[in-house]
Amino acid sequence: MALHPDRLFPAEPGTRAIARRLYEAVAGLPIVSPHGHTDPSWYAQDKPFPDPAALFITPDHYATRMLYSQGVKLQDLGVARRSGEAVETNPRTIWRLFAKHFHLFAGTPTRLWFEHSLETVFGITQRLSPETADVLFDRIEAAIATPEMRPRALFDRFGIEVIATTDSALDDLAHHDAVRASGWHGRVVPTYRPDAVVDPQVSGFAGNLERLLAMTGEAATWAGYLNAHRARRAFFQQRGATATDHGHATARTENLSQADAAALFAKVLAGRADAAEADAFRGQMLTEMARMSQDDGLVMQIHPGSYRNHNPSLFADFGPDKGADIPKVTDYVLALKPLLDAVGNDPKLTVILFTLDETAYSRELAPLAGHYPALKLGPAWWFFDSPEGMRRFRETTTETAGFYNTVGFNDDTRAYLSIPARHDMARRVDCAYLARLVADHRLDEEEAFGLAGELAYGLAKRAYRL
Amino acid sequence: MALHPDRLFPAEPGTRAIARRLYEAVAGLPIVSPHGHTDPSWYAQDKPFPDPAALFITPDHYATRMLYSQGVKLQDLGVARRSGEAVETNPRTIWRLFAKHFHLFAGTPTRLWFEHSLETVFGITQRLSPETADVLFDRIEAAIATPEMRPRALFDRFGIEVIATTDSALDDLAHHDAVRASGWHGRVVPTYRPDAVVDPQVSGFAGNLERLLAMTGEAATWAGYLNAHRARRAFFQQRGATATDHGHATARTENLSQADAAALFAKVLAGRADAAEADAFRGQMLTEMARMSQDDGLVMQIHPGSYRNHNPSLFADFGPDKGADIPKVTDYVLALKPLLDAVGNDPKLTVILFTLDETAYSRELAPLAGHYPALKLGPAWWFFDSPEGMRRFRETTTETAGFYNTVGFNDDTRAYLSIPARHDMARRVDCAYLARLVADHRLDEEEAFGLAGELAYGLAKRAYRL
Amino acid sequence: MALHPDRLFPAEPGTRAIARRLYEAVAGLPIVSPHGHTDPSWYAQDKPFPDPAALFITPDHYATRMLYSQGVKLQDLGVARRSGEAVETNPRTIWRLFAKHFHLFAGTPTRLWFEHSLETVFGITQRLSPETADVLFDRIEAAIATPEMRPRALFDRFGIEVIATTDSALDDLAHHDAVRASGWHGRVVPTYRPDAVVDPQVSGFAGNLERLLAMTGEAATWAGYLNAHRARRAFFQQRGATATDHGHATARTENLSQADAAALFAKVLAGRADAAEADAFRGQMLTEMARMSQDDGLVMQIHPGSYRNHNPSLFADFGPDKGADIPKVTDYVLALKPLLDAVGNDPKLTVILFTLDETAYSRELAPLAGHYPALKLGPAWWFFDSPEGMRRFRETTTETAGFYNTVGFNDDTRAYLSIPARHDMARRVDCAYLARLVADHRLDEEEAFGLAGELAYGLAKRAYRL
Repeated sequence: MALHPDRLFPAEPGTRAIARRLYEAVAGLPIVSPHGHTDPSWYAQDKPFPDPAALFITPDHYATRMLYSQGVKLQDLGVARRSGEAVETNPRTIWRLFAKHFHLFAGTPTRLWFEHSLETVFGITQRLSPETADVLFDRIEAAIATPEMRPRALFDRFGIEVIATTDSALDDLAHHDAVRASGWHGRVVPTYRPDAVVDPQVSGFAGNLERLLAMTGEAATWAGYLNAHRARRAFFQQRGATATDHGHATARTENLSQADAAALFAKVLAGRADAAEADAFRGQMLTEMARMSQDDGLVMQIHPGSYRNHNPSLFADFGPDKGADIPKVTDYVLALKPLLDAVGNDPKLTVILFTLDETAYSRELAPLAGHYPALKLGPAWWFFDSPEGMRRFRETTTETAGFYNTVGFNDDTRAYLSIPARHDMARRVDCAYLARLVADHRLDEEEAFGLAGELAYGLAKRAYRL
Repeated sequence: MALHPDRLFPAEPGTRAIARRLYEAVAGLPIVSPHGHTDPSWYAQDKPFPDPAALFITPDHYATRMLYSQGVKLQDLGVARRSGEAVETNPRTIWRLFAKHFHLFAGTPTRLWFEHSLETVFGITQRLSPETADVLFDRIEAAIATPEMRPRALFDRFGIEVIATTDSALDDLAHHDAVRASGWHGRVVPTYRPDAVVDPQVSGFAGNLERLLAMTGEAATWAGYLNAHRARRAFFQQRGATATDHGHATARTENLSQADAAALFAKVLAGRADAAEADAFRGQMLTEMARMSQDDGLVMQIHPGSYRNHNPSLFADFGPDKGADIPKVTDYVLALKPLLDAVGNDPKLTVILFTLDETAYSRELAPLAGHYPALKLGPAWWFFDSPEGMRRFRETTTETAGFYNTVGFNDDTRAYLSIPARHDMARRVDCAYLARLVADHRLDEEEAFGLAGELAYGLAKRAYRL
Repeated sequence: MALHPDRLFPAEPGTRAIARRLYEAVAGLPIVSPHGHTDPSWYAQDKPFPDPAALFITPDHYATRMLYSQGVKLQDLGVARRSGEAVETNPRTIWRLFAKHFHLFAGTPTRLWFEHSLETVFGITQRLSPETADVLFDRIEAAIATPEMRPRALFDRFGIEVIATTDSALDDLAHHDAVRASGWHGRVVPTYRPDAVVDPQVSGFAGNLERLLAMTGEAATWAGYLNAHRARRAFFQQRGATATDHGHATARTENLSQADAAALFAKVLAGRADAAEADAFRGQMLTEMARMSQDDGLVMQIHPGSYRNHNPSLFADFGPDKGADIPKVTDYVLALKPLLDAVGNDPKLTVILFTLDETAYSRELAPLAGHYPALKLGPAWWFFDSPEGMRRFRETTTETAGFYNTVGFNDDTRAYLSIPARHDMARRVDCAYLARLVADHRLDEEEAFGLAGELAYGLAKRAYRL
């Protein structure tokens, strides 16, 4: 199963040769990872990773959801229960169960990421199977005990130039401070994610709001609340943040008068906002955040369209982020209009849009990003961070929005070892796309080299102001 | 026009060679046909087919709709009028009219199925045209008079291991009994299709309901009605059924309390349910059927999203199933939630979802099937049972749901001769897809052989419990 | 950057060779341009084009929107402000600004059209860049002063057999009359576009309506209004029109009783129709127009689904058609039903449907056009008039609707020089599509030759009754 040097390149030999040349030019570029979910404590504490199951299986909802869909229980994969009830804790047992079902991943990006990590990080070129499970477990277990496998060593080995984490607005960013205080050279920056203090329907919202106001010393008024955000954004910026991130169920925005917004906030504060008002409030806050971005220069990311926790009994047992978030039809044309009416023509603002509804690419997102100076398109996200997904992204956006209204690649992952695998996949798929344009003479090869570098490195760095 | 051995394979020679190898390994596998609309009387009575027009044209809405769209009248193709008014009855005249318009089918699967049947069943390698119409008619007419062209002989010649028909819940399954009583070796099983006794808006519903209760000796209560279904399901199961099928306008499900469901049933029974209540009742019955499947093990199929009889004047003249059913936008994420909340986590239940809205594959269906243990994805259906449709199905589902949350191929046809043609097309297109994954090193060729067998045979057999 | 003879053909050599043969057979066919937005005064007056910026940049919203999306101001591209405030007027300055940003168009059809025009019209094979800007400007400026670059000379050089313009229902068609009076051989026909007198929400509607009635001498009644349309349609037909065109926000149609329609018209006339009534009126008028087409034989085009003037501040500054129209989700199945119920089964009527929502192709449009005798599918439109867009159009419509329910190509442009470039692109992409069907043996090459001619020429000519 050793990784083939031509993987993910077009099969037609002439086109493959072009793709190979383009890829060779960008394969070694540093990784700019402007959006993801790695744990900042890894960089601060530089502890070894615990075991193969914790490294590859238990926390990875891509891995556990596939097995769950085929009847494997999450507790048997070591996923903790909210009740505290016992779950499987033997990493080898979990690993064997995963190995037994590994054939399910044929044709998926999870399989490609996993095998890229096995080979490039651990030198393993055997496929995982019930027969090889123990050998692979032993090799990985032995390797992660070595200093070369610590987070900071891997950071260098992976060629990471800069990585952004995603952090609650209430986070003290102590791990980020510790990284900076340590004198280590790695660049790790936070991202301001205020959902917990913006979404009235999030669990614990009232307490979160109280804490936000307390930690900034602001009054419980609309003006105070906005100031509190400004203060926290500044706090994040002082620690290197260049972006904010907003995960809402829809892309709805609002642009109420400040008086109406204040009245709505008062209801939200009092816990009297109904579902429609909560939704309006979230929409209003996207526009407020965009206005703050006009002032402080933070790039704004909007990740809409996921129906979170679709499976209530699974949620009751295991909590969020266990593979039960399902994409929904997502409108942008009407939803974003209030925000765009307010700030869409500002070329100094950057709002990066993501989608889980691929139909929006050619119909809405490329036309919007190909017009509004403030808009850019984030890369293919989540279920679409895959060879076919990335290909469709380019095929449905480039003709209308070009390359320069896109922002390169985001790995968006909490799986540290998959970072180089994901960037490598994106570079290969983008080079394959460019090679096809060269092969049918839509681009010259010379300019394709320039574009390959932009897609792999330049666009992300510039768009995220890194 | 002789069938090319490499048809539907990728053009790139290396990839084509892989596809050819994969296809050779599965081309001769038996046909498992777990969902379709052949007439059980064919197997019971084993009579010769009447004439070439009746075999290929008049009953085939794929064929007649294309000619109708270009101005040909259905009565001139022999389609019976509800009024009893005369229609064309000379099969040769109908055949010639079809031949005159046969160029319309260029690029369609209908053309490929038709020519596959001509060559493999009748040894005809001439293209149908006004010039060849009579010769072909004569050859087919002569052939269908021979014993080799009787349904049972073709069953063996086609290599059918098992075929499922689709039968009204009220059907006495006499033809199925006759098949079994005859001692013939062919395996023909019924499928429980209760739409006529579940959908309050179907014509004749009140009488159907009465008949259902009468034939099961159940009371006209909610409990009696559910028991009647249970009894009929058992009756079908005794005759070999392994599945139920549900064709609703939407995928809406409900999970009312039993008291509310009983009250709703009372309204339905009294003929007082309005459109919204009828819709709720259909939704409730999907969940009830899923619960019964948990008990009796019948696999449940849901075929939603067709706007039936979109053309009222055509419907008035010719009735249903005449090519005027049009797909609609279909939601699954919200629609299925009540059913999934109730039974979605049961790994012993199998609910197979179909769609006519391809946008749902990557956005909703693959994410749902890649999570819920009870869900699997049916193959590309109806308008999408085609080379491009099947390719898009794999490209938009595999990366998220893998291969093992899909269920192989359904021919879904009432055109007996097209069965081997359709399975052959599906095997070719799936092998072409796998070959592309091998060619760009997403799969090893060795595992692609295993998957090709699963897609052609194994998955259908296991998913439908055949 | 010289145009490669194999551009837009499949990379696989065997398939490319087929595409090349097909293309050679159709490359030289005359251009039938049945729908577009060229200015009839060009043909009437045959004046030279003013300057390179006016020819290629300032009036072309494909060009200006891309630069605007990257922060360039429209006034700096010479786009006039409604306020009359000064904008850039030096064509060379505008040209240089465009050159500086020309790299943005990599991968877009705009780039391909532009370079096709440079080479085939001006003999320029250098890529536009800041370095080459002045040289190219000078060459183009010199060329457009020559008689060979006048509109009528280009008409012949482009091989245009017939071109349709799009004209307001209120237009006196004086330019069309002048063309005919001039004795010039070029065939230029008008198209009846009544939006300004059909849409109560269009600015100036009341005055438009008054003018319509005045110019036809009809009474301000529903019957008079319909007669006025009939008179204007006849006026257009006398000047060569074979088609009407309707650009609505949605595809909604209505089929009210004539009494209800008259009452609705009275409200519209009085300026008392609210938004819902205005929408119903537009819907009713589509059905009325279809009925008039049954009488007078004009082909009806429906172009729905664009959210016009999405950017209000840009609209306030610069007016409509400045790149701020954004596609929307568009339903056809329910929206068209009233019209189809009324006239859909008439094989003598031709209604050509367009979409900006590609999801409708396989789900709704191909199934509708593959059934209703009155319906045909227009080519990939606007943002989708591109290599990938045209490929997706064929891949998602052919299997269900075939080729003969489509109508060839529309260039739909106001950019005169892009007409041959656009037809050339469409011919190449269609030949590439056909070549793929030949390469995998879905079509014989011989019949592909016939189809290539139909797609390039025959279908448009027949569908538009030219």
